[in-house]
Amino acid sequence: MRLAVDLAKAYRLLNHGPTVLVTSAHSERRNVMAAAWSMPLDFSPPKITVVIDKNTLTRELVDASGEFALNIPSRSLAAATVAVGSRSGKDETDKFASAGLKTFAASQIGAPLIEGCVGWLECRVIPEPHVQQTYDLFIAEVVAAWADPQDFSEGHWHFAAGRERSIHYVAGGTFFETGDEFKVGG
Amino acid sequence: MRLAVDLAKAYRLLNHGPTVLVTSAHSERRNVMAAAWSMPLDFSPPKITVVIDKNTLTRELVDASGEFALNIPSRSLAAATVAVGSRSGKDETDKFASAGLKTFAASQIGAPLIEGCVGWLECRVIPEPHVQQTYDLFIAEVVAAWADPQDFSEGHWHFAAGRERSIHYVAGGTFFETGDEFKVGG
Repeated sequence: MRLAVDLAKAYRLLNHGPTVLVTSAHSERRNVMAAAWSMPLDFSPPKITVVIDKNTLTRELVDASGEFALNIPSRSLAAATVAVGSRSGKDETDKFASAGLKTFAASQIGAPLIEGCVGWLECRVIPEPHVQQTYDLFIAEVVAAWADPQDFSEGHWHFAAGRERSIHYVAGGTFFETGDEFKVGG
Repeated sequence: MRLAVDLAKAYRLLNHGPTVLVTSAHSERRNVMAAAWSMPLDFSPPKITVVIDKNTLTRELVDASGEFALNIPSRSLAAATVAVGSRSGKDETDKFASAGLKTFAASQIGAPLIEGCVGWLECRVIPEPHVQQTYDLFIAEVVAAWADPQDFSEGHWHFAAGRERSIHYVAGGTFFETGDEFKVGG
């Protein structure tokens, strides 16, 4: 299930630092990789930044298409997240299939979105060749955003009991699940 | 309590996307601000990236000194994190004091480090004027890193029962605490 997220609130999908799945497509090829290194960069128009290594198939597809999506997996996709983060799309015909990931069409870009995620950001690259080349750092504008309304609606996360939350990768197959919400101040 | 973190493992302090406190100093002035928008950028030598808005005192101090620290607060510092994220150091003589934050000296840089945090990264700016100016985005090398060994040692987080964990800001005073650790795959 998914509903559009107001673009001015799209940063809140990423503000707590979840690990994401980066999807990309160009011509007949498509791919998915894991990225713990992504974050919001601006509110409105919303921008994000993400590290996409030079050696990846994702990099080739993003360089060619100028587009990608950030998909926010929940805990049930953690094993698939490690799997697509450990293997190169260059060595497989379809990493989605081998990791058991199903997709649906994005609204503004050619890259597919991944079923079962809790949020999705469709992104268009803002070309910054120097930082792309030197740091593998990509800056992009968020052109559409979506969330599962059971977990995020009206600009707020509200993970209910029994719902799987977003995940935060550390290293070596180890994650933290997003923990309890709390509020401070007035 | 704090022990040095092997620089090759320093990225793991930030990999799960915690909110940080950015400390800076120049000449007789020092400041602290909150930042949810920071992430690792490279392993070795370790680099990080963080957004530092043009309108902040922190920006002036970082521009002048070329240095800052990322301090990783635990839940007991959440109210102080919101406080220093809501007020400008330009309007106060010492935001540390008004937020009840105590500091100690860093090892490699002039910016102070904040007591009661679970991890600390001392950073030296890698000048990238275009992205600094256009996106308020700072790229820096981590020149020293520290952690409270009760929470992070030998390259791994291991928050024990009863220990306060790192925190992840969303918006409007709302945070997620870092949740339960889990492991997938071989």
